[in-house]
Amino acid sequence: MNIKIDRNGVITIAKQLFNFFSDRILSGLIKDGEQLPSIRSLSKELNVSPMTIIKVYNELEENGLAITIQGKGTYVNQRNNIEKLNNLSKQNDFQWQMAIPDYLSRSQFKYSSNLTYANDCRNLSIASLSYKLLPTATILKDSLSLSQNNLKFLAQYPPVQGDYEFRGVLSEYLKSKEIITTAENILITTGSQQGISIISSTFIGPGDIVVMETPTYPGAIDLFKSRGAVILTVPVDNEGMRTDILMNLCDNYSPKIIYTMPNFHNPTGYSMSLKRKRELLDIAKYNNSIIVEDDPWSEISYKKEKVRSIKSIDTDGHVIYIKGLSKILGPAYRLAAIVAEGSILSRLITAKANHDLGTSMLSQKTILDFIQSNKVTYYIENLNKELLKRRNRVINLLKNYAPSGTKWTIPEGGINIWITLPESFNVEKLLYHSITTKNISFLPGTVCYPNEVEFNHLRICFTYLEEDLENTIIELCKLMKLLNTTENSSDYIPII
Amino acid sequence: MNIKIDRNGVITIAKQLFNFFSDRILSGLIKDGEQLPSIRSLSKELNVSPMTIIKVYNELEENGLAITIQGKGTYVNQRNNIEKLNNLSKQNDFQWQMAIPDYLSRSQFKYSSNLTYANDCRNLSIASLSYKLLPTATILKDSLSLSQNNLKFLAQYPPVQGDYEFRGVLSEYLKSKEIITTAENILITTGSQQGISIISSTFIGPGDIVVMETPTYPGAIDLFKSRGAVILTVPVDNEGMRTDILMNLCDNYSPKIIYTMPNFHNPTGYSMSLKRKRELLDIAKYNNSIIVEDDPWSEISYKKEKVRSIKSIDTDGHVIYIKGLSKILGPAYRLAAIVAEGSILSRLITAKANHDLGTSMLSQKTILDFIQSNKVTYYIENLNKELLKRRNRVINLLKNYAPSGTKWTIPEGGINIWITLPESFNVEKLLYHSITTKNISFLPGTVCYPNEVEFNHLRICFTYLEEDLENTIIELCKLMKLLNTTENSSDYIPII
Repeated sequence: MNIKIDRNGVITIAKQLFNFFSDRILSGLIKDGEQLPSIRSLSKELNVSPMTIIKVYNELEENGLAITIQGKGTYVNQRNNIEKLNNLSKQNDFQWQMAIPDYLSRSQFKYSSNLTYANDCRNLSIASLSYKLLPTATILKDSLSLSQNNLKFLAQYPPVQGDYEFRGVLSEYLKSKEIITTAENILITTGSQQGISIISSTFIGPGDIVVMETPTYPGAIDLFKSRGAVILTVPVDNEGMRTDILMNLCDNYSPKIIYTMPNFHNPTGYSMSLKRKRELLDIAKYNNSIIVEDDPWSEISYKKEKVRSIKSIDTDGHVIYIKGLSKILGPAYRLAAIVAEGSILSRLITAKANHDLGTSMLSQKTILDFIQSNKVTYYIENLNKELLKRRNRVINLLKNYAPSGTKWTIPEGGINIWITLPESFNVEKLLYHSITTKNISFLPGTVCYPNEVEFNHLRICFTYLEEDLENTIIELCKLMKLLNTTENSSDYIPII
Repeated sequence: MNIKIDRNGVITIAKQLFNFFSDRILSGLIKDGEQLPSIRSLSKELNVSPMTIIKVYNELEENGLAITIQGKGTYVNQRNNIEKLNNLSKQNDFQWQMAIPDYLSRSQFKYSSNLTYANDCRNLSIASLSYKLLPTATILKDSLSLSQNNLKFLAQYPPVQGDYEFRGVLSEYLKSKEIITTAENILITTGSQQGISIISSTFIGPGDIVVMETPTYPGAIDLFKSRGAVILTVPVDNEGMRTDILMNLCDNYSPKIIYTMPNFHNPTGYSMSLKRKRELLDIAKYNNSIIVEDDPWSEISYKKEKVRSIKSIDTDGHVIYIKGLSKILGPAYRLAAIVAEGSILSRLITAKANHDLGTSMLSQKTILDFIQSNKVTYYIENLNKELLKRRNRVINLLKNYAPSGTKWTIPEGGINIWITLPESFNVEKLLYHSITTKNISFLPGTVCYPNEVEFNHLRICFTYLEEDLENTIIELCKLMKLLNTTENSSDYIPII
């Protein structure tokens, strides 16, 4: 547009521009419905502050000569023909957003949301108890949390650290695991995932070293990577994390955090021997490392002997213990408890405040009574009997139907089986086919490796799917056989 | 304290300091119960690392000469209060933790936990409705969420994005605010705080520019700072954020996020004019900035005209809108809704998965019915009538009792009043005295400034305290008068 501006004149630039446009609109030189130049382009063209252009266009609007449609621009609008102009704003365009960088690293969820959780498939992927196994009805029926005398609690901000009564109940509950602690040393989080999230955002930054088992829990990998951690991996065998390898690694590197799932490790189901737990603790002390002990499983045990946590032998606050409650009581409440001491605890509480100011008081008060009662003990006893049967049924199916050369763990606790196929096998391909042709999902082992990925493992959960578990396993095994013979390892779909 | 340190001597500085203090404590020069200098001030004064001071104080504790009270400081403790010292010896086992650096920035909570939320004080600090004003009983009584047909939902992981039914109900609810959206464009978060947390961890990293109003919501300052953001501030007046200043600022800087609370801004209570909202949106478009519109208050309005959000005039996904539900329905459920579009939304959903895998399904299902029913409308109508009365009562008290030269906002919505005292006044000092002598807490304005701090403002909430609101205000005013005359601005307690 050929606009002459007198910068030395008495008339403000804004007024000059307003006159320019209003003259031409009223005289019809600029037609009704015609778009006026964008603020950006006009301010560049005339070397005038965009603020001035905005002022001018607002004035035109106020005088009924133009109308601005956010995201579209300003249009001549003599006859205030709103309807026609509204149509201009119909088709939305979010392209500009692509120019905005983010700090997201790999996310297992991003991947899962595309495939694993797709609609209501036959789900062997989610590591959870089925709704039929969970005590949801009892918890809700018996809960006193909704009684009048609790209304006050339910109308206030929860304490950042968590409901004091609930923390007290949990400290009692943890005694059964030989973890001696008090309400003061417990921090309630919105599930284990948030526990790990709070720990990583508090202690991990770019270049910090985190040691993880490989394979390990994908959600933890995502979090540490999103903080820019350097992840070093230590393999697991049937005695858990290879502490000998960790020890050598610590000759050259000083880990800030050692993340471990010692009991019924996810995804393999292995448990760390007490000997290795002691070694791990010694290594952590020697290197001033924090051990993050993620323990969602220890209640779900098919062994005679009690499961011992690393926390129970920790005397000087080297272990941050995370007791997830989702696996045993249900994931809908989003509850977990962190046990920690000293300044590590107080710093985690501060981080918790930043994250969400506290966890749902409704959730805390609702499951409090169930944990306090002896019902939880009976429930877990019976649960484990039932789960052991299921585990054995599924193991037998694998024996009968899995392709030759397939191996699997026989977990002594937890609800997952880790299946290892011949090295040339590609589970990404299997997943693609199982979902598209059989509507069966599982967790591809590929998402469980922080660094070097292996493609021939998968994790199946034997407690989430109720109807049709047997058939699903059998059909999956048949698909494995099919793809095992026709395997072509070159055409896998990389996911990271 | 006049301490001479010999930096070339054979005795370590720590030892010299220990001797200095132990001599004077044992000789009674420093009296029992007397507070020792803060670690920060002493390390500044002597130009000695804080770690050294901490070591010295710990040694004094180990020798039964001092005792540290978390969040208060270190005190002379000759009389060997065994019980306390036993607790300390426990803490001393955790000294190794002090060597572990963290990534926590300033935290309003850390500060608040020491003073503001201390025990059950007469609380003018928490910005919340009292339990008597909230519809908690109705929500819980009428909730169908605990019925058998929902057990399945309550036994599963919530969808990361939030319960679909709940999101649908919220999209309907938001229509009343002229925000046209669908369940697909809503993300449920564990309160507004987590909404901001997810946004900052997704889009903000070291050196990224965030524009904030000054003063503003302290919890947001903490989050952006913890991500290493460069925070630029724009003042607010009674028309909200000064867009003209923002405009000039954008000539030299390109903000990635512009965080604003346009309606009944926290802490001032001001609202942004529609004209400025349009300008802000234009500025954001011009600079490819994301506007984060934090809207916990818009329902609580004492004005005739409808409150218009920036989101309602956003057509191309420049605004991330956060609708916190804590202020109107109660903070115990920890629920908020984000409205966003395009890849910004999908990236936030991914971040949400990393943060906690989803928000409590129990909370979502519990308040769903109340929002769906017309009860929420009646409730808010009556609520606002009641709150207006309270606001006026408190304003009158301020008129009658506040010291001369005191100013305050008369909010047309929200539940906070922003009080401004003479420039020489120090609210940190006021807070210390009001808590220690009157057991009254309020929010010191000092925590609301991202950069340059002003010491003569405070925020009081007139809806949280039920019993004794009038007396509390009067006593606080009297204390203001007292300190206003005896003010000495030099001896404030810095908190950041």
